[in-house]
Amino acid sequence: MVEPRVYQALAQPVVGHLDPYFFEVVGEVRRLLRVAFGTANEFTLAISGTGSSGMETAIGNFVEPDSKFAVFANGYFCDRLTEMGKRQGAQVVRLEKPWGETFTYEEAAEFLKRERPQTAAFVHAETSTGALQDPAAICKAAREVDALIIADTVTSLGGVPVNVDQHGIDVAYSCTQKGLSCPPGLAPFTASPRALERLNARKTAVREWYLDLKLLMEYYDGRKYHHTASSTLFYGLCEGLRLIEEEGLEKRFERHVKNHHALVRGLGQLGLEMHVAEGRRIPTLNTPRLPQGADDVKIRKHLLDRHGIEIAGGFGPLAGRILRIGLMGPLSTESCVQMFLGALQEAIDR
Amino acid sequence: MVEPRVYQALAQPVVGHLDPYFFEVVGEVRRLLRVAFGTANEFTLAISGTGSSGMETAIGNFVEPDSKFAVFANGYFCDRLTEMGKRQGAQVVRLEKPWGETFTYEEAAEFLKRERPQTAAFVHAETSTGALQDPAAICKAAREVDALIIADTVTSLGGVPVNVDQHGIDVAYSCTQKGLSCPPGLAPFTASPRALERLNARKTAVREWYLDLKLLMEYYDGRKYHHTASSTLFYGLCEGLRLIEEEGLEKRFERHVKNHHALVRGLGQLGLEMHVAEGRRIPTLNTPRLPQGADDVKIRKHLLDRHGIEIAGGFGPLAGRILRIGLMGPLSTESCVQMFLGALQEAIDR
Repeated sequence: MVEPRVYQALAQPVVGHLDPYFFEVVGEVRRLLRVAFGTANEFTLAISGTGSSGMETAIGNFVEPDSKFAVFANGYFCDRLTEMGKRQGAQVVRLEKPWGETFTYEEAAEFLKRERPQTAAFVHAETSTGALQDPAAICKAAREVDALIIADTVTSLGGVPVNVDQHGIDVAYSCTQKGLSCPPGLAPFTASPRALERLNARKTAVREWYLDLKLLMEYYDGRKYHHTASSTLFYGLCEGLRLIEEEGLEKRFERHVKNHHALVRGLGQLGLEMHVAEGRRIPTLNTPRLPQGADDVKIRKHLLDRHGIEIAGGFGPLAGRILRIGLMGPLSTESCVQMFLGALQEAIDR
Repeated sequence: MVEPRVYQALAQPVVGHLDPYFFEVVGEVRRLLRVAFGTANEFTLAISGTGSSGMETAIGNFVEPDSKFAVFANGYFCDRLTEMGKRQGAQVVRLEKPWGETFTYEEAAEFLKRERPQTAAFVHAETSTGALQDPAAICKAAREVDALIIADTVTSLGGVPVNVDQHGIDVAYSCTQKGLSCPPGLAPFTASPRALERLNARKTAVREWYLDLKLLMEYYDGRKYHHTASSTLFYGLCEGLRLIEEEGLEKRFERHVKNHHALVRGLGQLGLEMHVAEGRRIPTLNTPRLPQGADDVKIRKHLLDRHGIEIAGGFGPLAGRILRIGLMGPLSTESCVQMFLGALQEAIDR
């Protein structure tokens, strides 16, 4: 859900991609993204594409051909990371876990010490399962083998703490339409000084001109023409980030957690068990298991047709086994939780 | 300049990237883009990035590593095509001409017969010079050596006839913020059945997952999740294309030509000579040479500060030698031309 103020911002007059006013907005977006990411990284900005272009930027710039790339694999987006790494010509190695589980430091350390990759990637909040990975467990292990660490924060940024600097994440990317409650179209991105050193030491040119971070730095820092960034999308993102600043990031996280707990309690009262273990759940994306014999398509259709509520089903190994309930931004309220639980009970009982 | 109706469309509620309503809008955008491109190509859509991502999509999918790629080089964007081709690992060969000139069939045929490239690219309307290349001259020569032909229509689409099918262009890409009068953020794209055959015969995987046309076809034709396309930008583009349909594409082109002639006449009366030869000028981007001793920065600053009119200067070999005057979409009117000529005279006389 997008706030009215963000919609108003989208309708403001378009200005040129080198207009001083555009760079004012870009500056504000960069400042506010640093807060959301929990980083002092100078190189924090928004890529002109959707969240997946953020993933492509991370892989295209930081996974070199013929290098070894380690992926922590416990859901759908790890497979996408794997695919992109292979297309870059890297040797991809994976540590596998069932969908919905997460990795401990010991597991990560054993894997990374054995493989010694140049780069490793994990998904912070996995949309396909509802599991939240502790970044500390993986980042500590990655540092011990001097692997650059990429975090997919598509579903976490703005919804749960990311704390890039505290955890020692080198590269993180996200989208605008989840925790930041804006329309899709831009990919927030941050890279540490250590990551940029690695980039400067690359032996081969980045293949994607459009997503080449060095060229993007010359554009956003040096105001040298690269591509025509969309002032429209930057206006929207800027207003969405200002709304988050006004609420306060910590208060926003607390609100998400409080309503998450209320939802989980209510789901329990309906007899639904959560797919992910307590303490590893994404507060903004809740994944209860379906009751015995329940039909997820029917339940979701009832919710949409009768109540205008859109939730998602499971897919891959979790198809037909879980529901995926987004509870983030302006929708994460006590009354939304109560309304949803009533509608869900009705849908299950039918 | 963007019409009020397009701004209103941008503020409409965001829907999901797999929502049936979103695909309705996508269907309308694809239908209207076919009209603008002048093509029956089934594979006509908008890439989720700016015009430069359209160029990257064309090169990333249709220029294979170790293939030969021919570029018709007479301006800034030919250099970008060259750079992208090199990054794909292709052997790039160029036919050079001074900035502002165009290529004849004989020149193109001699070059292509000598080089026998797998793919060739040209810029239809070159933003840096104001020159309009006749596509027929290059496409005929390219067909004779069975080279796939890519046309950069970033500055032409919606402003002047592109006629993809009539000319036999295989691949064309554009942007939304020029001839289509929408905000930037999407890249209209079309590929012929012949281009798709070539794509299916590729020996190597497309390196850019985000811009992989086969995956994009599965998304837009098969409704299989790929990335989260921005409903906001599609709403805006759809409304902009509807406005063009309401005016009528031919009438729009005639309007652009009529006001272009009025501008050129007026510039002549001010003593300014056009940089590009008659018959090869882009009606929507006019490039007069600066009068002897005139300072383009001062002229442009005066126009912006006193009249709120933003025009561009020359760059590269044309820096300080020409002005670049956009006259397209809602701004291409008789009164705009008169107002501008008055303001320009004042700016020169100071």
